[in-house]
Amino acid sequence: MKSTPWHQEQWFTSPWNFAQEALKDFDFAKQIKFHDVTLRDGEQQAGIIFNKEQKIALADQMAEMGMHRIEAGMPAVSAQDREAIIEIAKRHEGRGEPEIFAFARCMKQDVLKAVDCGVKGIVVEIPASEHLVKYAYKWEYEKAIDLAIEATQCARENGLYTVFFTIDGTRTDMDTYFNLVTRVANEGHMDALAVVDTMGGLAPHACNYLIKKIKTVVDKPLEVHFHDDYGLGAANTLMALSAGAEVAHTSISGIGERAGNAAYEDIALALLTMYGVDTGLKYEKMNELSEMMRKFGGHIIPSNRGIVGPTLADIESGIVADWWVNAHEEHPLEVSPYMYSLVGHPDAKVVIGKMSGVPTVDIYLDQLGLRCDDKDQKMEIVQAIKTKAFEKHGLLTVGEFADIAHKVLD
Amino acid sequence: MKSTPWHQEQWFTSPWNFAQEALKDFDFAKQIKFHDVTLRDGEQQAGIIFNKEQKIALADQMAEMGMHRIEAGMPAVSAQDREAIIEIAKRHEGRGEPEIFAFARCMKQDVLKAVDCGVKGIVVEIPASEHLVKYAYKWEYEKAIDLAIEATQCARENGLYTVFFTIDGTRTDMDTYFNLVTRVANEGHMDALAVVDTMGGLAPHACNYLIKKIKTVVDKPLEVHFHDDYGLGAANTLMALSAGAEVAHTSISGIGERAGNAAYEDIALALLTMYGVDTGLKYEKMNELSEMMRKFGGHIIPSNRGIVGPTLADIESGIVADWWVNAHEEHPLEVSPYMYSLVGHPDAKVVIGKMSGVPTVDIYLDQLGLRCDDKDQKMEIVQAIKTKAFEKHGLLTVGEFADIAHKVLD
Repeated sequence: MKSTPWHQEQWFTSPWNFAQEALKDFDFAKQIKFHDVTLRDGEQQAGIIFNKEQKIALADQMAEMGMHRIEAGMPAVSAQDREAIIEIAKRHEGRGEPEIFAFARCMKQDVLKAVDCGVKGIVVEIPASEHLVKYAYKWEYEKAIDLAIEATQCARENGLYTVFFTIDGTRTDMDTYFNLVTRVANEGHMDALAVVDTMGGLAPHACNYLIKKIKTVVDKPLEVHFHDDYGLGAANTLMALSAGAEVAHTSISGIGERAGNAAYEDIALALLTMYGVDTGLKYEKMNELSEMMRKFGGHIIPSNRGIVGPTLADIESGIVADWWVNAHEEHPLEVSPYMYSLVGHPDAKVVIGKMSGVPTVDIYLDQLGLRCDDKDQKMEIVQAIKTKAFEKHGLLTVGEFADIAHKVLD
Repeated sequence: MKSTPWHQEQWFTSPWNFAQEALKDFDFAKQIKFHDVTLRDGEQQAGIIFNKEQKIALADQMAEMGMHRIEAGMPAVSAQDREAIIEIAKRHEGRGEPEIFAFARCMKQDVLKAVDCGVKGIVVEIPASEHLVKYAYKWEYEKAIDLAIEATQCARENGLYTVFFTIDGTRTDMDTYFNLVTRVANEGHMDALAVVDTMGGLAPHACNYLIKKIKTVVDKPLEVHFHDDYGLGAANTLMALSAGAEVAHTSISGIGERAGNAAYEDIALALLTMYGVDTGLKYEKMNELSEMMRKFGGHIIPSNRGIVGPTLADIESGIVADWWVNAHEEHPLEVSPYMYSLVGHPDAKVVIGKMSGVPTVDIYLDQLGLRCDDKDQKMEIVQAIKTKAFEKHGLLTVGEFADIAHKVLD
């Protein structure tokens, strides 16, 4: 059993993920890369701010964990941002990975600012949808095309790997979109095209066709940059990667503009355990990297967020506590889909609350060195735990459990 | 333009979602229902507790918003839970919807407890995977089948609509799974089968085949109960619904065991705006319902969570603030994928921070009744905002902006 792609020592997902019929549309690229946008789009989340030192520290930590690319910022934002990009580019120069990128509006002067930072690559953005160009920029569409051609040419002339980033691409009339990217590919320059779901309005069922269709028109590697307004950023990215996109733009724990970007944690772990694709990250550093980002940026996640939530692995339910008692030592994957240690998360533990039953009482009596063989006394303890949990409107401490246990047993 | 399914008065998602080729695997049921698990699986999230009054209030609020079904709890958990279920069943009796369900382990006594609560339906759970039965329950597999047959028969005899809930179904050997559900359908009873991804290890690309395959074996309506360990619960549910599942088990804002359940907000809004499926909910009550749940349960979401995050609609980035200035009055869907009012969320607003540029300065000078036509002075204000934001490590108040503006302009 443990030799299947869905069931290994470190994880146990679903065999359905690997059913032949489920794989029929797959066309994975040989190498998948993560392009981290935490320091640019992530910081655009209203209220999040990283100073220069924090950006450098986050980039170092990302390098440690094997992130393939880091979009270190937009030089035009502030002097501190510019200095951070310069320092990050310098620290990671000549190492292969992470490759350091900067972000630029479609203006020659923005591109030149990025050149001055010593980065290897650049993401050059232009509004792609006719309505955004008309209503939000108040431009003629031709202006967007001209600026894109000029800026991407400037990037090439200066030796930067150029990702052409089409804002609101997924809400663009298809003919308009293909005309834009074809003209920029031919008259300007792009080393890769970023397909951008700026508003998060793309659905997972559409991603396969989207990517495959664009690949028939554009003979460049595709990158996907998806947002999370509907909680679909990770799923959409997975669907796009399985259709042949090569680079996923993601952020740490999904921070970003509006509802955020797709979270690299969800995608990387899903690729590893549900798609058989190892992107080479040091997965065991995921939890630590998320903690660092949240501390620096003051970002709060649900305590039980997948992969990196502090209380994710806590078990309150009596039914699941019973599974834990029976299986956690020899068969830990009966209580979680992957070993929490795989992502550097503390292991599962049973907590004491309203949902607790006899298994939880056994665990904590044992921990306190107390003994009880009387079923009725145990049920009395269970009832007292529930009463106390309602009173507190929350979990019990071990001390509170001990008080209850002594009251019943002594 | 505004007559397309992707672009209406209230939303603007992606035309790709409706491309003929993207719809090729679609087989939506005529009527999609939400089965809310907030009061049972939601409360199983470690640390979350709702008392009787809170459960009743949440059920009332869900009824207001048109939720189709409410799983009101498991009677065995506590006297308060039992009383809450009884009261909720009584309050919503004879109204059609919401239908009130209870949850039961596969034991006759649990089923009878639900019967005593006066509910209309029951969710009867059994471990389905051979490994969970063996290692976490320490049963022979035949025992699981026998209990399931007995408990579901008991539910039928007592007139309850019976949803047979197959724990860990997605990690079950397929032959074993089909044998279990066929035997329970034939020898026991089920009005519907719940396909359960207990560990969240299912991937979106597999859902279509999963649902269609099960439908060839089981001639009952399918319900899907998916978890969020990889952030894929909503996407998986959408993929399953598009393949013909009829009922989605979801919770308010995704609370639930471990990393939580699929959030109904994401799914319902996606169905409406990306799939052309109106489930009939009063969408404008989404934000209020989430707030109530979070207040009662002490659950914290990221401030920018999609649909219900308090700061979701805040705009800090200068680029996006510029879009807002140009488009928000006549073309508000250039700055968000749907009108925030559609889900009862406060409208977009521009905040003041490190990412701010001249458009933000214009907005707040105007708000303060100040005037400035000097570009250099505006840039000076922009720079001072950025300096202050770095100092504070956060956003500026309007008062702080006013101080800066006066210092520069006076």
